[in-house]
Amino acid sequence: MPPVPSPAKTLPIAMFDSGVGGLTVLHECLVSLPHEDFVYLGDTGRFPYGDRSPEQLRDYSFELAELLLGEGAKLVVVACNSATAAALPQLRDALAGRVNVVAVVEPESRLAAEVTQNGQVGLLATPATVDSKAYERELAHAAPKATLHPIACPELAPMIQDGNEFDQRIVDAVEAYCEPLRGAGVDTVILGCTHYPLVRPILQRALGRGVTIVSSGQAIADAVHEKLTAENIENDTGRRGRYSFLSTGDPEAFRAVGTRFLQMPLGKVRQVDVREPRQKAA
Amino acid sequence: MPPVPSPAKTLPIAMFDSGVGGLTVLHECLVSLPHEDFVYLGDTGRFPYGDRSPEQLRDYSFELAELLLGEGAKLVVVACNSATAAALPQLRDALAGRVNVVAVVEPESRLAAEVTQNGQVGLLATPATVDSKAYERELAHAAPKATLHPIACPELAPMIQDGNEFDQRIVDAVEAYCEPLRGAGVDTVILGCTHYPLVRPILQRALGRGVTIVSSGQAIADAVHEKLTAENIENDTGRRGRYSFLSTGDPEAFRAVGTRFLQMPLGKVRQVDVREPRQKAA
Repeated sequence: MPPVPSPAKTLPIAMFDSGVGGLTVLHECLVSLPHEDFVYLGDTGRFPYGDRSPEQLRDYSFELAELLLGEGAKLVVVACNSATAAALPQLRDALAGRVNVVAVVEPESRLAAEVTQNGQVGLLATPATVDSKAYERELAHAAPKATLHPIACPELAPMIQDGNEFDQRIVDAVEAYCEPLRGAGVDTVILGCTHYPLVRPILQRALGRGVTIVSSGQAIADAVHEKLTAENIENDTGRRGRYSFLSTGDPEAFRAVGTRFLQMPLGKVRQVDVREPRQKAA
Repeated sequence: MPPVPSPAKTLPIAMFDSGVGGLTVLHECLVSLPHEDFVYLGDTGRFPYGDRSPEQLRDYSFELAELLLGEGAKLVVVACNSATAAALPQLRDALAGRVNVVAVVEPESRLAAEVTQNGQVGLLATPATVDSKAYERELAHAAPKATLHPIACPELAPMIQDGNEFDQRIVDAVEAYCEPLRGAGVDTVILGCTHYPLVRPILQRALGRGVTIVSSGQAIADAVHEKLTAENIENDTGRRGRYSFLSTGDPEAFRAVGTRFLQMPLGKVRQVDVREPRQKAA
């Protein structure tokens, strides 16, 4: 990858996702990089991405990245599994020489490869992510001898989004999804959807003490830090970062649900326009 | 301690607390010991314990332990800082030869002693717990060269109990309480109150990536497992545990708030009577 031409260290790190899920990734970045500014863009106006074509997702990713670069950004983080699966190589090509891109899948696959002792790695993800085989490819790259046990969890993200994290339905669903992973004797499980960290205690109970849960958030936080260091664009570590939030849908709805995902109040959310919105912004 | 006379392996593990906070301890026990039965007793009818005398807390602890032994129990866990500080040695004496007692403070102090690299250990706890110096004593025992940095957090447990975990007031309070710990360069922080795991992500953000958070829940889960193994009273690991919940106050209120602390629905809560209740049970 060509070096990024002298970007200002003081620019924010930009992050986008189809909605609020990526805020669990942002949370982990705030733990690791409290001195960096972040701008987060949730494409809630076109959420969900599950039924979009790869061509659409590429167009959306280009549009969102350009929108964020227009705000000023020294690094782009794709905190969205669907966009990563459909558009990552093309997005990296399109932005080459302007800004580098960190995305989900690769960082948590590498982390799982480091963590597993017995080579049996579970994956919990949406059906689209499981079907994409993206984690199989990355894990095969990072740990050729490891075996991935993918479990498609069609119901889990919508149930979490609805906001009843402690509902018996969620406990039952989590237990059913984890059952085959226990049977396979996995010692590591990748959370391949940014919604899942909200039910991490329930997942840990279903998987047992001996299983290490790896989320994309913690892995991306490490990857972002590495990239900032390698490019020498880390902000002054003595300062305190500022965060801003953009949404392509209703900013109030984003703020209400987003608070739960980021585990802190979001403050003001700014509405931005994109092509082909599903929902009108308020 | 004398060996416990052949208790039935199939009896439940009993746990009591002044209210719902100990359910975060129970959660960690469920992760480690999914095959054990548990009976949890929350003394919400006399909550809070903060303004009770040591003599009262001893009486309450004896009463609650006898009540639980009446239900049948092979081990008693005191998941309450106030009761532990006031009554642990006396309770152990009173139950000696009948059942062993595991309590907070000692297990997480030992764990913190194992975890710390630089010997600077923070403590976040209620004013009463900080004043009791119980953690100073245990840490001095477990790691004589370590230094404890205790921070009394008078507002945190009530704010968490009220249910607004993502409120800006909580974020601000957590940051203010953690500020001196960052200044002291601690690498390990003990959560000395069972309410605090509910805001662990906020605490981790305020403390930064390099600080390891140690909760009494995870430490007690290890201590309980050790005790079961040492006494050879662990239940069949192939089975699935059952949980029952008792409350000395309004069982519906206990169920509603407790779900958030245990991160799963509690099912039926049974009301039990004690002396000197503050609130009438419904």
